Amino acid sequence: MYSIILANPQMGENIGAAARAMHNFGLTDLRLVAPRDGWPNERAYTMSSGALDHMPEVEVFDTLAEALHDLHFSFATTARPRDMVKPVFTPEQASAEALKRKTKQQQKIGIVFGAERTGLLNDQISLCSAMVSIPTNPDFSSLNLGQSVLLLSYAFMADQLGMPSKPQEGGPQSPPAPQRELHSFLDRLQTDLEDRNFFRAANLKPTMVRNIQNIFTRAEITEQELRTLHGILSALRGNKTPK
Amino acid sequence: MYSIILANPQMGENIGAAARAMHNFGLTDLRLVAPRDGWPNERAYTMSSGALDHMPEVEVFDTLAEALHDLHFSFATTARPRDMVKPVFTPEQASAEALKRKTKQQQKIGIVFGAERTGLLNDQISLCSAMVSIPTNPDFSSLNLGQSVLLLSYAFMADQLGMPSKPQEGGPQSPPAPQRELHSFLDRLQTDLEDRNFFRAANLKPTMVRNIQNIFTRAEITEQELRTLHGILSALRGNKTPK
Repeated sequence: MYSIILANPQMGENIGAAARAMHNFGLTDLRLVAPRDGWPNERAYTMSSGALDHMPEVEVFDTLAEALHDLHFSFATTARPRDMVKPVFTPEQASAEALKRKTKQQQKIGIVFGAERTGLLNDQISLCSAMVSIPTNPDFSSLNLGQSVLLLSYAFMADQLGMPSKPQEGGPQSPPAPQRELHSFLDRLQTDLEDRNFFRAANLKPTMVRNIQNIFTRAEITEQELRTLHGILSALRGNKTPK
Repeated sequence: MYSIILANPQMGENIGAAARAMHNFGLTDLRLVAPRDGWPNERAYTMSSGALDHMPEVEVFDTLAEALHDLHFSFATTARPRDMVKPVFTPEQASAEALKRKTKQQQKIGIVFGAERTGLLNDQISLCSAMVSIPTNPDFSSLNLGQSVLLLSYAFMADQLGMPSKPQEGGPQSPPAPQRELHSFLDRLQTDLEDRNFFRAANLKPTMVRNIQNIFTRAEITEQELRTLHGILSALRGNKTPK
């Protein structure tokens, strides 16, 4: 799985927030390059809400080059494109590129973040294979380190967490009703409406019936909801039970 | 643009973090339903890092139904799918659905978040058109309110912030070199290698030349980089200037 590399992180709190964000999305390989306050760091543990306890030992390196030693491809995270001759990916594009490299060639991929105050330095970026930039409002682009790790962990991992490729229907307890039951309800509704003289203009009746049918077919009504609708109809008619 | 609705938020800090996250991605319509500590809230202003000053007045409502009054479609944010007969979208799917509705039908779309401790109640979800669920590690799915707003603001807005649909090349200062200049470098390299008796086995030479050419053509070398490579060649040969 992907590695997260924090280059020269300053605040333990941010390391902890990064670990927590990683763990939220199933990432576990955290590498630190020369953390300002050393390692281990108590504030990082507190801020990680237990995430660091569930992850393998954090690895600490003196230089970014050493932290990247076994990786095949790395993304340098930058707030805005730099004047570097290197492709700049959106998070989504970077995620697709990483997945392709991981799946087809078993490449090990890293995502690299710079120090809180400066971001990645140009020398650090030049060690990475490509850049990834989170699109933000140009007038208000302040994302802190923890938020950046959260967004990229999400972007890289969202489609690998077993999520369905199509929107899911919620709750299996009441499947959509078979069409005959819907039609039986619609027949009953039409009969009731005829009884109450709803269709006054005979020439408009076919259109009105069609409109009513469209409303109820489009809603993909379940059996349970159909029972509710029958109950409503009975109540409105003043009957105790469905006709 | 999309509206963010916080139903029964408890902490002012979280309202501020939500505002900041919205503003990061260009969203400005924040609506509150019965915030526990009233409104305005000083902690929210502090935590928003100025975002609330750049956004229109926050609207406060007594009930979720009132907060949704002018919207055409709304997503209920849930940590996990509930037993509700309502489609469950991933953030990406929800974003595509929202964009389609906004673009084709000028629909106003809302994204609804529940209280910190409980999330959205089933009664609140039943007022929304659909559900959206952020995929997380099932063993560690704790996202706070500010993080959830950040991730969904990103998911809904990332592709509307003028980001290119293809990875960008960084920096315009040095375009890829015209092929003739690359070939002239490759010719020089080959001549130098011949001089040094690099191609000992004559029958392998064509393959070796092809391999070398592949390395350099694949790298899409710029004019500036070609000058560097010429310099390297000169230095290795012991010349001061290119031949």
